[in-house]
Amino acid sequence: MSSQTIHRRGLMLVLSSPSGAGKTTITRRLLEKDDNIDLSISVTTRAARPKETDGVHYHFIDVATYHSMVAEGQLLEHAEVFGNYYGTPRGPVDDALSQGRDVIFDVDWQGARQIREAAPNDLVSVFILPPGADELERRLRARGQDSDAEIAKRMAVAGQEIVHYPEYQYVLVNNDIDACLEDVEAILRAERHKLDRQMGLRDFVADLTGKLG
Amino acid sequence: MSSQTIHRRGLMLVLSSPSGAGKTTITRRLLEKDDNIDLSISVTTRAARPKETDGVHYHFIDVATYHSMVAEGQLLEHAEVFGNYYGTPRGPVDDALSQGRDVIFDVDWQGARQIREAAPNDLVSVFILPPGADELERRLRARGQDSDAEIAKRMAVAGQEIVHYPEYQYVLVNNDIDACLEDVEAILRAERHKLDRQMGLRDFVADLTGKLG
Repeated sequence: MSSQTIHRRGLMLVLSSPSGAGKTTITRRLLEKDDNIDLSISVTTRAARPKETDGVHYHFIDVATYHSMVAEGQLLEHAEVFGNYYGTPRGPVDDALSQGRDVIFDVDWQGARQIREAAPNDLVSVFILPPGADELERRLRARGQDSDAEIAKRMAVAGQEIVHYPEYQYVLVNNDIDACLEDVEAILRAERHKLDRQMGLRDFVADLTGKLG
Repeated sequence: MSSQTIHRRGLMLVLSSPSGAGKTTITRRLLEKDDNIDLSISVTTRAARPKETDGVHYHFIDVATYHSMVAEGQLLEHAEVFGNYYGTPRGPVDDALSQGRDVIFDVDWQGARQIREAAPNDLVSVFILPPGADELERRLRARGQDSDAEIAKRMAVAGQEIVHYPEYQYVLVNNDIDACLEDVEAILRAERHKLDRQMGLRDFVADLTGKLG
C-alpha cells in the first residue's frame, strides 16, 4: 500500500475579509494554482447581472425554490441581503469533501458562523485584515468603482466586519498579496495533514505495523 | 502601527517518528533554514560521549540535580531510559515562547504526552511515518550503523512507536524528504498565524477599527 493512496476527507476553507483587503484576488489565484480546491457556487434569488452566467457565478433560483431549500436543510448557510436571498447548497459540498476535494467559500462572518455550526470539523476559517486604514482606503480608491460617499460607507462597513476576527481560526494581515497567498497555501497544506482528515491512515498504519512485527 | 509589530507567542513543535523515518534530517534542515526556531537542549544524567559538548548536545547533570529539577517542576517532560535520566528544562522554553521564538523538541510519544499535558495550547505535534516497512528497513541498513539483530530490534520498536500516531495533531508520510520538510514548514507557517498565538492582534485591530470609524 503506497502512502499516495491514503484517503483524506476534504476541508471547507472559509476566507473572510472586508472588501479591499485582498480576499477576491487571493481566492482567484488559489483556484488557478491548486487543482484540488473548488469554489462553492451560491444560490441567489436576485436577477443575474449582464456578465453573470447561471451555474458559474451563481445558481439563479426563484424565491419559492429558495424557501423549499431552506425548509429541507439543503443550505449550509443562508442570508437575506438588501431584499435578496443567498445560500450555499449542501449537496455539492458533501460530495466534494467525501471525494477528498476541498471547497472554498466566499462568505462574511455571518455565513462563516453558520458553516461552523453546521460542520465544525470540516471548517478551516481564515480572516484577512488590511494592513491599515489608510492602505484600505487607497486600495478601495484604486479600484475606481466607488464615489467618495460609497468609499466612506465601505470603510465603516469594514470596521464592523473586522471586529469579528476572533471567530476565525487563522488571522492574516495582508501587507503583501504574494506573502498572504503563501500563508493561505501553507494553511491549506497543513490542514490537509491533520490527523482527523486522513481517513485512510488507520488502514495504512495497520498494514505497516503488521509488517514490522 | 505596522502589522510587522504584531506580537505573537512562540510555539512548541514536537516532531516524533520511529528511527529511520527522517525526523533527524528534517529537524536539522529546519534549524538551518528557519531563524526563528531553536532546538530544545535536554538535560541528562548519562556521561557525555566523545563528540558531545555540554550545553550543545545535552546539559550533563548529576542525579541529585536531576531529582531536584523534577521536584521543583523545572522539567516539562522527563523519562528514564536504560537507567539514565533525561528531561526538558522549562525555563529556556518559557523565555523563548514569550519572546515569540519557537522551540523544536526531539521526544518520543511519552515525552510528547507530557508536553501536551503541561502546555496544550503551545504544542504543535507532528508524527512522521515511514512510507512502508521495506523502505524503513532499507533506510536503517543504509545508515550502516547496526547489525541485523539491531535492525530487527529497531523495526519492532518502530512498530510500537507508530501505534501512537493518533495522539498527534498532524501526521506526515515521509515518501520524499524534501516534500516532508515542506510539509513541516507549512505547518509551522500556518500555526504561527493561529488566532490565539497572535497576542498583538487585539491592539492592532483596536487601532484599525478606531481609524475606520
